[in-house]
Order: sequence, then structure tokens, then C-alpha cells
Amino acid sequence: MPSEHGADGSEPWLALSDMGSFHVGGRKAIISGKAPRLATLRPGDAPVTIDPNGTYQVDQLYAQYFIPHRVRGEAALLLWHGAPLTGVTYETTPDGREGWATHFVRLGWSVYVSDAVERGRSGWALFPDIWPGDPVFTRHDRYFDTDFRIGKGPGAYSPDLEVLRANLLPGSRFPAEAYEGLAKQLVPRWRCNDEAILDAYVALVDRVGPCVIVAHSQATRYVFRVAQRRPGHVRGIVAVEPIPIEGDDGRIDVLRDTRMLYLWGDFLETDPEWPAIRDGAHAFRDRMIAGGVSVETIELPKIGIRGNSHMMMMDTNNLDVADVIQSWLAKQGLYRS
Amino acid sequence: MPSEHGADGSEPWLALSDMGSFHVGGRKAIISGKAPRLATLRPGDAPVTIDPNGTYQVDQLYAQYFIPHRVRGEAALLLWHGAPLTGVTYETTPDGREGWATHFVRLGWSVYVSDAVERGRSGWALFPDIWPGDPVFTRHDRYFDTDFRIGKGPGAYSPDLEVLRANLLPGSRFPAEAYEGLAKQLVPRWRCNDEAILDAYVALVDRVGPCVIVAHSQATRYVFRVAQRRPGHVRGIVAVEPIPIEGDDGRIDVLRDTRMLYLWGDFLETDPEWPAIRDGAHAFRDRMIAGGVSVETIELPKIGIRGNSHMMMMDTNNLDVADVIQSWLAKQGLYRS
Repeated sequence: MPSEHGADGSEPWLALSDMGSFHVGGRKAIISGKAPRLATLRPGDAPVTIDPNGTYQVDQLYAQYFIPHRVRGEAALLLWHGAPLTGVTYETTPDGREGWATHFVRLGWSVYVSDAVERGRSGWALFPDIWPGDPVFTRHDRYFDTDFRIGKGPGAYSPDLEVLRANLLPGSRFPAEAYEGLAKQLVPRWRCNDEAILDAYVALVDRVGPCVIVAHSQATRYVFRVAQRRPGHVRGIVAVEPIPIEGDDGRIDVLRDTRMLYLWGDFLETDPEWPAIRDGAHAFRDRMIAGGVSVETIELPKIGIRGNSHMMMMDTNNLDVADVIQSWLAKQGLYRS
Repeated sequence: MPSEHGADGSEPWLALSDMGSFHVGGRKAIISGKAPRLATLRPGDAPVTIDPNGTYQVDQLYAQYFIPHRVRGEAALLLWHGAPLTGVTYETTPDGREGWATHFVRLGWSVYVSDAVERGRSGWALFPDIWPGDPVFTRHDRYFDTDFRIGKGPGAYSPDLEVLRANLLPGSRFPAEAYEGLAKQLVPRWRCNDEAILDAYVALVDRVGPCVIVAHSQATRYVFRVAQRRPGHVRGIVAVEPIPIEGDDGRIDVLRDTRMLYLWGDFLETDPEWPAIRDGAHAFRDRMIAGGVSVETIELPKIGIRGNSHMMMMDTNNLDVADVIQSWLAKQGLYRS
């Protein structure tokens, strides 16, 4: 047994009993009756004829897991990322600090980091032949300027780091030097795959069993419906800056044994979009509470933690925010102290 | 310090001093002067107007690293995957056994598993606006039937596991029950990005420093040129079933301090494609040897290890094959015994 421990009882290194990865879910998609088409594979080469007909494996989900030598979580901890991103969201921050994934492993959680269907190592499919829509690409500067509450607004991005720093929201804890790295994490996404994404998350929960799910942003679109389909497995949900959610209002009662936390960062009030997003997200929360579900809401500024962006898992105080989650999980009896 | 060890000196658990991930390389691609276009995002929705103009972050590479508590490799070990795949190639096998990545960490190597540009967590770019070619999609059954020397040939794939088993090449060590999982690892690829892929691998080597690179299949298209651009860093290359390679014949001399191993599995002689691939790969090898580079070639059947497919890191004897590599690395003085 490792015999040296940090002052807080954590190991001075990561002692894992296992780590690995797998794909779950997905389906075989058949393309038939389509005419061959010309494709240019390299500029300058003559186009080649491609026959798209055949069977393809699509809609699967990739997950990677880390099981600590000494498990202290009462359930596995699943980390689900937001829209044009992958599980990298939770790994090392783009400026090289420890991310939530490793931090929670260190605390004794069996951590599963997944890539949603469409994204990262989950792969993607022929469109519009298999996925009936066009992909969405994100400009590199978008999230500095808008949506993530990092910079001061449209036009705030600059390739000059000093200008970038000056254009952060006042008091922002997002590290300006991490922005280019965050832009490298962006991947294309679709808007036509909600059911496939949901089904694959259900397959993940079926594979893992009892779990707590930390769902960020777009992932909150699915997490409540996943819990409603697998209430016996989903013991807790941490909705990190959730978006307006379409849970199944007819089945709120099955969520009564699932502990829930809504977690919000800073700068919402002065943002052009976020007050409406929050109100939309709170509508389903309020219906859950009315239905007897235990839901706690933490607005970080109200407990003295200020400056957090939508990407609070990358902010300079990211481990302080993780510890808010950790304390809440312990309070729910989901962690062995 | 962990005090319990296996009979071979390895830890009974994985003791890591660190793990994490990063992106390296890439560039900003600017699209300008293009007309807005209509995109259908969800079937049934009205098309929306998309303005593709703007700046996008493209061509970066994702890598994940695991640093053992007790490092015994004399350099980092980089694991580079083949064409329509990602770094998942080297993780848990699709039937749930330990993969090469974890095995080499356990042996004391600092392991870096990367996704090539285009694939997995490295992301992909608008085409043909940024990448001047069409992506290539792979049918789910292709590699059972052809290319990877798993099944008996065209038509060998079956969704029935018993038929699949019966249709393996006689003596195959590929686990039939892993094939559906391998199909889930397939991702689209392009054929127009060789320079971007090469540049990102150079950026990875610049970031990591002294290294040994295990390059599988398509990755061998790049690994020798990377070593020629960074000969001081690349101390060894393990070319696992290399493809015909375009190294720089004018700079073979800079490779004289790089130890090299060519590693081949089974069933090459009776395959319709592989003898020519091997001969093509050996042409550059022979020019390196003539130029004074140290190159060893191991054909696994000739040392009594039979039945290996092109995906030998997934075969049932995958750790035996890893140990052939490990023994060779130790013999080169790249491992502290």
C-alpha cells in the first residue's frame, strides 16, 4: 500500500487499480440505392468514383476510465462535456494545470470521461446520407467574445496576449493564456443527433452502473432524461451551467432518489443571453422541486467565489470550484470520508 | 513508495507521478470572400443561412500522457496510430484486455498517446474550404475482410459471432469478439493533409523532447521524416507494419543515432496486398542500412510468434508482442533494467 499521504489524506501520486477505455452504444447504418459520386481526395488529383452504399458503424460513444487504488466515491463519477467540445474539457487545463478529471481521481472517485456522439474519439458519420443535417463549425474567437462569459463582448478577442488579458471581463478567473488552447479543443458538431446522443449516454450508464453525473452545458440537455430512463443507476446529477432542459414532466417522480445540484458561475446578470438561459433551466428545476425531487442550487458568487466563466473547469480557481462539488457530494452521502 | 511488486518487479497497481493532456501545433485558417450558404441543421427545419467566412483553428494534434512514479524508460514512448483510427488503438483492446499504452506505463515508460491531425480529439476542419479534399469513410466490415489480415477475405464478415470466428484466418490471434469494437474505433480521414499531419507530429516531438516512437501503419509515412527533422530528439523508432515510406533520401545520415525496428506480423505471404507493401517499406529501410543507420527487422513468425494480424496490439497475444518491442528497446540501452 502507498504509505505517504498529503496533508488532506490524498496520495502524493496517483495510485490506480486500473485505467482503460471502451466504446458503447451505436448502430449499423445502411446506405443503399445511392448513385456513385465523384470525390476529390487530393487537390490536383483526378476525382475518383466513390460508392457510398454499404453498412457503417455510427452513433457509438467513447469513454475512458480511471479507477483509483483506494475508491472513496459511493458511485462512479461521469464527466460529460458541452457542445462543440470533447472530454478534453475536464483534462489538463489548456494552460497546463490539473483538471477536474485527475483531481477527482486523486480524491478517490472512479472517473469516466466520455466524448459525446459526433465528437472526438466517438467518431462521426457520413452526412446527409446517415446524419440528416450539416455540421456546425465554430470560429476560433467565438467563445472569447460571446457565450462563455470570458471576454468583454464581440471584438474582444485579440491574438495579442496583453490585449486579450485587458479584454477579459473585469475580475475574470479565465486565464487569457489558455484561450488559444481552448480554441484547439473545439470540434464540429451537429444539431440533428439528440436521440443518438441520449441513447449512447444511456448505454454508458448501463455499462457503468451506479453513478453521479457531472454534466456541463449541452450535456444537461440529456442528463435528466438519462436519469429518468435509468433512475436506479443515476444517484446524483451536478448540472454545471445547465441550458433549458426538456426532461420528461410526466416522470419527475422517478427522480426522487437522485440528488441534484445546479451550479452557476459569475457574470450572468450582465450577459445578454445568460439570464434567459438560467431562467429556462430553472423552470424544469422548479417543476422537479414541486414534484418532490431534492435540488440544490449554488451560485458561486453568492458563496464568495467570484470571476468564474462558463468554462469554470478551466478557470484559475478550477479546483476551488471542484471542491464545492466535492463538498456537496460528501454532504449527500456519496463519498466515504 | 509503493512497497509491493509483482514477480517481475512491476507494481501491482499503476503508480503515476502525473497524467494529463494537451494540444500542440496547428494554425489559424482564414476563410474570406465566400458567399453565405444554406445549411439544413435538422431535418424538417427550414434551411438557415451560414456565413462560412472567418478564422478557424485547425491542424492541431491532441496527446495524452501518463508518467509513471518510477520512470525506467530512457526517453518518452510515443504511440502513433494508423489511418482511419485514433490513439484508442493502443488503449484497452475492444474485448477488454490491457492494451499497449497501459502495459508500457506499467513497465515504467512515460507514455504519450496521440490522435493524428484530422482524427479523434484533434478535431477536423471545414472542407473543401480549409482542407482541399473530401473525407474518406470506412465501411464497418472492411477490415475484417481485407487490409488488416483478420478474416479470410471479401465476404468473410458476418454479424454472427460463430461465423465470424469460423471465418478468421486459420490460426489468427485476432479475437473475433473484438471486431465490432474495432469498427467503433473507425473515424473518417482525409488524403490531403500529409504536411499538416507531419508538422503536428514535429510539434509533438518538440514538446516532449527525447523519445522513442512506436508508429503503426500510416504513421510510418511520417515518422522517418519527423526523425529527420528532429534527429536529436528521436532516439528510436519502432515501425509496426510500416507502409512504403517517403523519407528524405538526401538526409539519411542524420538518422545514424536513431535505433530502428521494423516489426511484422503473420499471414503476409498469402495476402494479395501485403508482400508489395512490405517490399515497398523495405526499400527505404535498405537505403537507410546502406547509409549506416542501425535497423533491425523482426518477422514475428520467424521467432515463433504466429497468428498476428495488422492490429497486433489488439490480438490475444498483444502483450507478448509488446514484450518483443520491450526486449528490443532494452537491448538498445533505452531502458533501465
